[in-house]
Amino acid sequence: MINPRTFRGTRDFLPNELLARHRILETIEEAYRRYGFQPLETPAIEYLEILTGKSEENDKLIYEIKRARGEEEESAEAAIALRYDLTVPLARVIAQYAELPRPFKRYQIQPVWRADRPQPRQGRFREFVQCDADIVGTDSLLADAEIIALTYEVLRDLGFENFRIRLSSRKLLRGIVSIIDSRDSMFMPICRIIDKLDKIGDDGVKRELVNLGIGWDKTVWAFDYVRTGFDSCRFNDIRVYLEANDQSGMGVIGLSEIEKVRLHALNLGVPETCLACDPTLARGLDYYTGPIFETVLPDHPHIGSLSGGGRYDGLVSTFSKERVPATGTTLGLDRIQTALTQLGKFKPMSSTTQVLVARFDAEGMSECLQMAAELRKAGLRTEVWYDDDKLKKQFAYADKQGIPLVVIAGPDERAKGTVALKNLRKQEQKEVAREGLVEMIKAWITSEPDV
Amino acid sequence: MINPRTFRGTRDFLPNELLARHRILETIEEAYRRYGFQPLETPAIEYLEILTGKSEENDKLIYEIKRARGEEEESAEAAIALRYDLTVPLARVIAQYAELPRPFKRYQIQPVWRADRPQPRQGRFREFVQCDADIVGTDSLLADAEIIALTYEVLRDLGFENFRIRLSSRKLLRGIVSIIDSRDSMFMPICRIIDKLDKIGDDGVKRELVNLGIGWDKTVWAFDYVRTGFDSCRFNDIRVYLEANDQSGMGVIGLSEIEKVRLHALNLGVPETCLACDPTLARGLDYYTGPIFETVLPDHPHIGSLSGGGRYDGLVSTFSKERVPATGTTLGLDRIQTALTQLGKFKPMSSTTQVLVARFDAEGMSECLQMAAELRKAGLRTEVWYDDDKLKKQFAYADKQGIPLVVIAGPDERAKGTVALKNLRKQEQKEVAREGLVEMIKAWITSEPDV
Repeated sequence: MINPRTFRGTRDFLPNELLARHRILETIEEAYRRYGFQPLETPAIEYLEILTGKSEENDKLIYEIKRARGEEEESAEAAIALRYDLTVPLARVIAQYAELPRPFKRYQIQPVWRADRPQPRQGRFREFVQCDADIVGTDSLLADAEIIALTYEVLRDLGFENFRIRLSSRKLLRGIVSIIDSRDSMFMPICRIIDKLDKIGDDGVKRELVNLGIGWDKTVWAFDYVRTGFDSCRFNDIRVYLEANDQSGMGVIGLSEIEKVRLHALNLGVPETCLACDPTLARGLDYYTGPIFETVLPDHPHIGSLSGGGRYDGLVSTFSKERVPATGTTLGLDRIQTALTQLGKFKPMSSTTQVLVARFDAEGMSECLQMAAELRKAGLRTEVWYDDDKLKKQFAYADKQGIPLVVIAGPDERAKGTVALKNLRKQEQKEVAREGLVEMIKAWITSEPDV
Repeated sequence: MINPRTFRGTRDFLPNELLARHRILETIEEAYRRYGFQPLETPAIEYLEILTGKSEENDKLIYEIKRARGEEEESAEAAIALRYDLTVPLARVIAQYAELPRPFKRYQIQPVWRADRPQPRQGRFREFVQCDADIVGTDSLLADAEIIALTYEVLRDLGFENFRIRLSSRKLLRGIVSIIDSRDSMFMPICRIIDKLDKIGDDGVKRELVNLGIGWDKTVWAFDYVRTGFDSCRFNDIRVYLEANDQSGMGVIGLSEIEKVRLHALNLGVPETCLACDPTLARGLDYYTGPIFETVLPDHPHIGSLSGGGRYDGLVSTFSKERVPATGTTLGLDRIQTALTQLGKFKPMSSTTQVLVARFDAEGMSECLQMAAELRKAGLRTEVWYDDDKLKKQFAYADKQGIPLVVIAGPDERAKGTVALKNLRKQEQKEVAREGLVEMIKAWITSEPDV
């Protein structure tokens, strides 16, 4: 006998939880469509060379797949692996299909796999669902602003109240970092350390910067100056500071990106209180080139970001000679569910079945089946009891499953042309005519919310 | 530069195809819920020992996954692999969670992976989506009949007209095979050969049986006798024949199963013409124990079965001491899509966006964004044009995407408090008041079908 268990870091979703999870997905999908995004799906398995080399961090987490015996008849040399995100497959798709429109606005809701250390309390798993929305084929910062407005609306629709969308730009970060250390090769290493600020705190960042030979005081000063400027919306002060100190000239370009994206987002209806410009936002991925953003819950810092994204104008070039700018975001379904659960806003749901046709005696069987067929024909979600069990057991099942109505047709009722209709919500039972039963049930169900 | 391509045997689903594919899934899911099935999802990755040993054929097709470097800190010995079906994971789930109701009626719509030789024309891929419905915890043949009725309704709802649900029982097959060869060890080998009848024809079956040392004439005679009996509904003749020739006694039990399932299915509304009892239906899987069924398109034999399933009362015992009977079916989404396509019933769909807010000049930008926000607030699926392009290009995009309405607010309109509203379906453009614009658009969209 094999011990039944799930692979560590992955989960089963049983019906009551999954029905509530579907509700979250419907809310997300509705918002994505409201903004004009169209669905895309790509395979779980990609050639390994498609996936590697886009992000040092992610390369380590790739699950490679062994080529199987059944494949031997064809050239089975090319290594294959499970995708670790939905952005790299999108970049491949963009390069592969010339017929796609520009702008191409796609959403994609599919699982991804990472050989990470699972931390269920933080909503971190090895198999998790990403909900991506990306706008491909435009340099316009309007696109970045739409991604932010979309993120705001999704989280609002899901019932989140106190959340903050942090906004920055990789160009601003380049400017600030070049004040601290002008070597180009130091940019991503410093980026990745700053990105961990929330996780490892000031002390951790200090330690790691010092290990890298970077001056801590200078770093703190530069980031603090810009952050304070943002907090009081003194964009001009930041501009003057960058013009005086940032030799690269990138900082002011980034600053102006942030200002524009912020203004567009406000015009699109994002409340000012939800949007926080923050130079310490870094995002760990290598491929971002412009505005970057992520969403955090200030009251629940341990959950980490619910969404993260940014502009990546160079990624498609890995697969194509054409330069294709792009921006987008990922919403983490599992983080969102974890957060909603901890906020008490995720409630498992009961069965979607509306009517149970009980079984009374063998003689009544064909009548039961025909009744069930009629109810289903009217669109009512109906179950039939399969076994020769006592009514008590059948009622207990309906009750536990949250099925509101039970129909019983014993020999007395059949003789009279009636059925007994038990309403478990109202805790009442009455005898009704068999004729017109379906319409009566349909009318009651339509009048009752949440059935 | 990496050549952008998908792994052989897997596919991308671009929006127009995927939207139509979603429609198929909605139809299937609606039918599943109408029969009282509840959703379940399990991880793509399972421990290898959970998957192997249930079906000799499938073991060869399993994609094993390499344990990754990132996992090294924990015990990383246990081999892991991608699931090849949804039935084995269900059996694991049944054994793992004592809290599940009985009967447990679950549906599951998820991809599975098999290292098979891809045959796109036949709808065979290495990654494909299975839509399973199973009833767990009852021996009642009513459950098998419900699975058949459900299959009938799904295919009817999807627009299939001429399809046949073949019905048999592994017990009947055991009876017939034991007439031919009484050795128990010969049952599955003969089963697997008979299962290939549609693919390799009479000659192929003959050759393989002879190779196995089985008498061809005797086999043909036994199967033909039972088949002819079924074709004219002479169940009693078959019973008499089995009682005289089948020493195992299994044949008559199987025959009576088939008769009962057939009657229940007819009571549930399955038309007699859709249901075909057929002793040569074998199904390749090892674990079936009772009624078995599959759906074929008589006019399109090369497509293979659209659905397949049966009763498997022993599978859960691999993971549990408890005996848990179960029956169910798999609908192959990719086979169904292939069949609908070849029947001319699968039509790619255009974009779901309803309104495009065109961009005219930089000064009008904030007005455009606010208008888009208003339209979305009213639930209208709205896009904004991102770049400084000619109106002609913007109209061409809307036209190609099938977006019916374009809103344009140039300086003249803004001065007058109006907007130009272009209806691409009617090929007309009119000037309307800015105030009340949203309600007007909403009314038109509601009145128009398919927008």
